[in-house]
Amino acid sequence: MSKVVNGRAVAGETRDLVEDVIKEWGYRRQRRVTAPAPLVELVFNVLGGDYAMEIIVGAERAARQHHLAVMVSGLEGRQAPSRGWVDELVSRRPTGVLWVFCSPTVSQVKLFRSRHIPFVMVDPLAEPGPQFPSVSVNNWNAGLSATRHLLELGHRRIGLIAGPTHALASRARLDGYRAALDAAGVPIDPGLIRQGDFQISSGVENARHLLGLPNPPTAIFASSDRDAIGIYQVAYELGIRIPKDLSVVGFDDIPPASWLTPPLTTVRQPLADMAGAAVDLVVDLARGKQPSRREATFSADLMVRGSTGAPRTA
Amino acid sequence: MSKVVNGRAVAGETRDLVEDVIKEWGYRRQRRVTAPAPLVELVFNVLGGDYAMEIIVGAERAARQHHLAVMVSGLEGRQAPSRGWVDELVSRRPTGVLWVFCSPTVSQVKLFRSRHIPFVMVDPLAEPGPQFPSVSVNNWNAGLSATRHLLELGHRRIGLIAGPTHALASRARLDGYRAALDAAGVPIDPGLIRQGDFQISSGVENARHLLGLPNPPTAIFASSDRDAIGIYQVAYELGIRIPKDLSVVGFDDIPPASWLTPPLTTVRQPLADMAGAAVDLVVDLARGKQPSRREATFSADLMVRGSTGAPRTA
Repeated sequence: MSKVVNGRAVAGETRDLVEDVIKEWGYRRQRRVTAPAPLVELVFNVLGGDYAMEIIVGAERAARQHHLAVMVSGLEGRQAPSRGWVDELVSRRPTGVLWVFCSPTVSQVKLFRSRHIPFVMVDPLAEPGPQFPSVSVNNWNAGLSATRHLLELGHRRIGLIAGPTHALASRARLDGYRAALDAAGVPIDPGLIRQGDFQISSGVENARHLLGLPNPPTAIFASSDRDAIGIYQVAYELGIRIPKDLSVVGFDDIPPASWLTPPLTTVRQPLADMAGAAVDLVVDLARGKQPSRREATFSADLMVRGSTGAPRTA
Repeated sequence: MSKVVNGRAVAGETRDLVEDVIKEWGYRRQRRVTAPAPLVELVFNVLGGDYAMEIIVGAERAARQHHLAVMVSGLEGRQAPSRGWVDELVSRRPTGVLWVFCSPTVSQVKLFRSRHIPFVMVDPLAEPGPQFPSVSVNNWNAGLSATRHLLELGHRRIGLIAGPTHALASRARLDGYRAALDAAGVPIDPGLIRQGDFQISSGVENARHLLGLPNPPTAIFASSDRDAIGIYQVAYELGIRIPKDLSVVGFDDIPPASWLTPPLTTVRQPLADMAGAAVDLVVDLARGKQPSRREATFSADLMVRGSTGAPRTA
């Protein structure tokens, strides 16, 4: 039993948060009618790719320490699971559920609550609020530092391929980009900001558009490494050399970032560590323990590699 | 109940195989003391990377059709799982287990048998024998067709980066390579055959060696796409253009093969389909049904893309 559950004194703000979580979600183990199964469920918006694999690797490693097995499932691109799917999940009585880039609906949240199944959002789509525990990176800071890196190299025309508008992370990265340009006194050109969706195809389409402009950018900040891979493809097609003719910064640091030619400068999301922290957090919640707040937000470090350099005409 | 289990007439050879499987493994459902849990376990030698992800995607899709959940775990590079790990697995009473590039020990096989937990080997390390159901591709044919493709383009000095010696698939691909050269009357140069381990680092090391030879190969057949990625890195470093100066053929067709620059000519292992077939097979075995033999071996098609062309000096 944790100090908070016993009502003993802890720092006020932390206690309030923890008590909210426990009251709201009934995460105390003794309130579960039956003991949970030794499983953690990982639910992905789309199962596939390096991003999802990094989450699985980190979750599996952490789960093994707790003697929990890891189950994976994908929603085939839907934002929320279907009724039948949720019923099957609930019938497995998992110790906890990790939602990766997707969320349950309000009625599904109620169902999980009634069965005392805790969950944690990993890299949440929307602001989760304090009663929804989550693990994410500081996306605004990351957007700022990626853009600053390009400004410091001398770039002034910096394109941005933004993430999907329904993801709050996209907005935070965009705002960080704007803030860096504002702070450097560089006017924002809306023509250099493109809407993407974190996929390679979005990188290809947006890079074609940006590099076809009469006054193209000398650098592009992509909101995902997959967008950056799309930029590499277009640069190869057009005979544009990276970084000599074009600098590229990605986001995520999935494994290909290190082995692309040239290796990609990118913002590292420590996805495996984040997934491990999410497993630890959901286990704590299942046991009625005090959630460890410090694990909720990870810093996202800029990994400077070979895809960024000074602009040719600087 | 299948025809075989009921003893009705089917083609003799098939019936014998099926009866062997059922006798040997006791896969008839009624012999299990308790009903299995609606789970399929995926066990990987190493969890991580595109190869494993493709298997997970295909297995999850197939498992969902059977209303089975998918569990994943990795052995962190060990060839067989530890005792404690197996005990936890057995206690979950899975419907079946898929082994990917790893195998249980003899005593673990006995344990699974005693608990009537069927398993299928996916892309098996060693010749599994008829009592171990498996799903794989025809590696010898694949090695032959990859090498033939390079010969037809006019290459005569063709390097090979072989897979790990403990994997039978490596030997089959090597033998296919030799057979293609023999058939074309091209003498085999042992100096062009290198030992690799399917990893990017093995591609890097072996490409450095091969491309540093006084008379380097004009083409390299890599036994994995990850080896091919390593070759791309070395080519980039040395200013060697693919395919103009060097042709490269990979193996697996993991997603990066399509988006590398240039896109990689490679032998496609339909990993997601193979994993789906393995799930179907293990479910059939769990139900005492006749295993579908035709799904045991998949053909591996050569995907011709941008990384292969005529040699410069041809």
